Amino acid sequence: MAIEKFKTVVKSVEGLQVSCKSRGFEFILDEPKNLGGTDTGMNPVEALLGTLGACKVIVAKSFARLHHIKLNDIRIELEGDLDVDGFMGKNPDAKIGFSRISSQIYIDADNTVEEIEKFVEFINRTCPVADTIENAPVMETVIIKEP
Amino acid sequence: MAIEKFKTVVKSVEGLQVSCKSRGFEFILDEPKNLGGTDTGMNPVEALLGTLGACKVIVAKSFARLHHIKLNDIRIELEGDLDVDGFMGKNPDAKIGFSRISSQIYIDADNTVEEIEKFVEFINRTCPVADTIENAPVMETVIIKEP
Repeated sequence: MAIEKFKTVVKSVEGLQVSCKSRGFEFILDEPKNLGGTDTGMNPVEALLGTLGACKVIVAKSFARLHHIKLNDIRIELEGDLDVDGFMGKNPDAKIGFSRISSQIYIDADNTVEEIEKFVEFINRTCPVADTIENAPVMETVIIKEP
Repeated sequence: MAIEKFKTVVKSVEGLQVSCKSRGFEFILDEPKNLGGTDTGMNPVEALLGTLGACKVIVAKSFARLHHIKLNDIRIELEGDLDVDGFMGKNPDAKIGFSRISSQIYIDADNTVEEIEKFVEFINRTCPVADTIENAPVMETVIIKEP
């Protein structure tokens, strides 16, 4: 076991703007105006798609050589379906989060289609963000009342 | 049904650096040097924790008034456990993604502890990113060989 602990701190900024910080790095998320925000950053579900695609791209680039894939370039376009009536409380039967996530993986590699397909299967099962979504971790919450 | 489609495009930059773009917004992810990157941004699993925390903060701020919570401030510290031996291919039994995510929610609100606890339960079950992790969506992949 080589358990590493990854940490991120999330703070309210103003309106629905939120700062996400991990180690020295930060990004700002917000909501578009039709979802109550001021549209100063992508929203959490768009960012979630980004982390999923980024994780797959990093797995691809980390393991291409080992799998004899001559990877020239990779790009992923992700699309997620979300029934906003669930989140908005307008439909108690609607799933709250994504019901479907589809990934179009554009790969430029000096390999056969079969080799590329096999490599994409490897990427999908070796991606930590994909695994976190497909095999839910234990989720714990502790509440601290301030000040 | 009010299905909205959210889209994000992920591109390889250089090394393990990745650009995530949605609408006009972008953030860069990378890996620390011990995981093969050049440490120019947080990594996808840290960013995943950020999207989860951000989503909960936005739900809290969007619905506080409706739930009679006088919310002055909210901050979430998230920690995720990940056995990197799984991702690295060193241990076939290790879970690839997070095995545990814990959230410490710091809430400053002019309410009782019981009211705050009830509100946090609402947040946890109304958060689209949490639901996506806890109730996996259908995941589809299409491969496009380029050029």
